[in-house]
Amino acid sequence: MGKGRIEAFTDGVVAIIITIMVLELKVPHGETFSALLPMWPVFLSYVLSFIYVGIYWNNLHNMFHTVKQVDGRVLWANLHLLFWLSLMPISTDFMGENHFASAPVAVYGCVLLLCAIAYAILVTQLRRLHDASTTFARALGKDVKGKISIVFYLVGIALSFVNQWLGAAVYVLVAAIWFIPDRRFERQIG
Amino acid sequence: MGKGRIEAFTDGVVAIIITIMVLELKVPHGETFSALLPMWPVFLSYVLSFIYVGIYWNNLHNMFHTVKQVDGRVLWANLHLLFWLSLMPISTDFMGENHFASAPVAVYGCVLLLCAIAYAILVTQLRRLHDASTTFARALGKDVKGKISIVFYLVGIALSFVNQWLGAAVYVLVAAIWFIPDRRFERQIG
Amino acid sequence: MGKGRIEAFTDGVVAIIITIMVLELKVPHGETFSALLPMWPVFLSYVLSFIYVGIYWNNLHNMFHTVKQVDGRVLWANLHLLFWLSLMPISTDFMGENHFASAPVAVYGCVLLLCAIAYAILVTQLRRLHDASTTFARALGKDVKGKISIVFYLVGIALSFVNQWLGAAVYVLVAAIWFIPDRRFERQIG
Amino acid sequence: MGKGRIEAFTDGVVAIIITIMVLELKVPHGETFSALLPMWPVFLSYVLSFIYVGIYWNNLHNMFHTVKQVDGRVLWANLHLLFWLSLMPISTDFMGENHFASAPVAVYGCVLLLCAIAYAILVTQLRRLHDASTTFARALGKDVKGKISIVFYLVGIALSFVNQWLGAAVYVLVAAIWFIPDRRFERQIG
Repeated sequence: MGKGRIEAFTDGVVAIIITIMVLELKVPHGETFSALLPMWPVFLSYVLSFIYVGIYWNNLHNMFHTVKQVDGRVLWANLHLLFWLSLMPISTDFMGENHFASAPVAVYGCVLLLCAIAYAILVTQLRRLHDASTTFARALGKDVKGKISIVFYLVGIALSFVNQWLGAAVYVLVAAIWFIPDRRFERQIG
Repeated sequence: MGKGRIEAFTDGVVAIIITIMVLELKVPHGETFSALLPMWPVFLSYVLSFIYVGIYWNNLHNMFHTVKQVDGRVLWANLHLLFWLSLMPISTDFMGENHFASAPVAVYGCVLLLCAIAYAILVTQLRRLHDASTTFARALGKDVKGKISIVFYLVGIALSFVNQWLGAAVYVLVAAIWFIPDRRFERQIG
Repeated sequence: MGKGRIEAFTDGVVAIIITIMVLELKVPHGETFSALLPMWPVFLSYVLSFIYVGIYWNNLHNMFHTVKQVDGRVLWANLHLLFWLSLMPISTDFMGENHFASAPVAVYGCVLLLCAIAYAILVTQLRRLHDASTTFARALGKDVKGKISIVFYLVGIALSFVNQWLGAAVYVLVAAIWFIPDRRFERQIG
Repeated sequence: MGKGRIEAFTDGVVAIIITIMVLELKVPHGETFSALLPMWPVFLSYVLSFIYVGIYWNNLHNMFHTVKQVDGRVLWANLHLLFWLSLMPISTDFMGENHFASAPVAVYGCVLLLCAIAYAILVTQLRRLHDASTTFARALGKDVKGKISIVFYLVGIALSFVNQWLGAAVYVLVAAIWFIPDRRFERQIG
């Protein structure tokens, strides 16, 4: 089964997710600059989520580049990932609207965690179809970053009950981890 | 006429449908975990619909993979299917918002039924262009599953007036039927 | 300049337009079947617009199939068409919400008229790049249907002030004209 | 790394942005023509933004046409541009809802300015991968228009505090500058 359509569909869904998040930004009431001020938490959470969805698109882009074949389980593992990614807009807004209160920050972390687990499942399904000699397997390696992320999200969720900003800081940290070495990863496979 | 653009358009519409359903999930009021509790029926109906739209994408993906040609009637049969699929978000929300009350569960079943009938019409139109020796015709076989689904939806709609959970259970059952043997189908053609 | 990306972009925008129209359908209040009853005008206008956008997609699909080259003016003529098509959702809802009152029916007709004029401009721009011997020019012929449609929309708009249902009936008639011979057109070029 | 998927993703996001802007147009209350009158500022800002997003799509279309390779930095520079473009719908609505008041016009100009800066960054990243002998570098030249635009946006933002219509007029002027010579640029590379 070719990978073309799964790539196209995934690109489509991710493009829609990253764009409809902006629909959660409500037009400020009032015509002055000060009308924009109350938007900062919603805007901040939008920026963070935009970067996260961008990272997922980037990673899916790089990963599918090396993939040789897919099957039905991969399709469903991919849809499963898209399901949790589709909850990014609402959990982003939940966090932003409540000014990064503890519970919403923890919920946001749970969505990130479930996306990361879904990504790990997708990787596992793709590994099944690509033995250790393939470009896919070599580029992926042990996927240390994927495993570390899951641990970090758990830490972030726990910390959000101590102090919500600590939790949010951990999410920013994980985004930074993915943002930076991703370019190295890409050079390896490029 | 090539099948490329009909595939691309269908992928696009299905990707949008599966993603805008999440816009029906309203951000909960309140900043505590308990604010999420009242969302369970809407969330549950979202999960079910996400799986259903995923199944349709999967089936369309597999079916168009074996299709050799399309014509104007196929385009319209396909648009007709997309029309009923486009009603998934609103009927999902109608069912969720009303906590799986009888009438909304029956309405949801009607939309599923109309999608299934539209799918059967699309299959009929494609059969017209592909004789029994084609991969398409062999992979499709007698389409027993398609016919059974229509019967099951009718049963589900009827049962939803007895007890709405019975109706919903039938819809879950049909989803499971498609979810599982779909992989077998795909191996046959893969 | 290749036509690939203009086709992809157009498909994307049309797919989004046809799908977001459904967002104008508001979830009915109440959990009974009678809660659905007040939706009929909105639903009816949705069906009509879905068919119209489907016709445009179909026609653009067939037309671009025979197109050999595009340039900057074609890009803008195409964007101009997409602009008026993008007003379909709101004018559909305006007509539906007001139960096919005279003014909204006339406004809806104006949007259809402007789409038709924009389509004629796009055709003119494409003719400039394709001489009479090309498949494009032969398939298009004198575009009688395009010209008739514009006249009919004008009639429909005028009639909507006499009786709104007469106006709406003309729009349905034009849709039927496009729906039926389009298949013949396609066979010629197929 | 191929440019195909970055083009597809960009096309998708831009197609969604240009289309969801229309969701900000609220259906007028009332069933008369006069119900449409209060919409003029929102409609006017919609037209301007539609043209701007169209220009960006057109320029990205032409630019990526000549691009030979992309890397991770280009992906992120592109996502960065898409981020600011994604703020077009909300800033458009902010300007329209407030009838082109000074602050919203200035905010709209800031979004345009940030898009232009993001575009310049994307160009810089692409230049890094394409030496002066490539079609990309020759077609781009010194990118005088890009630099002039940034200056003009700054002027427009400043003028919007003197008189909001002066600010808006500058934005219209920049759009006109891009709209017209873009066709010349395209002929050079075509």
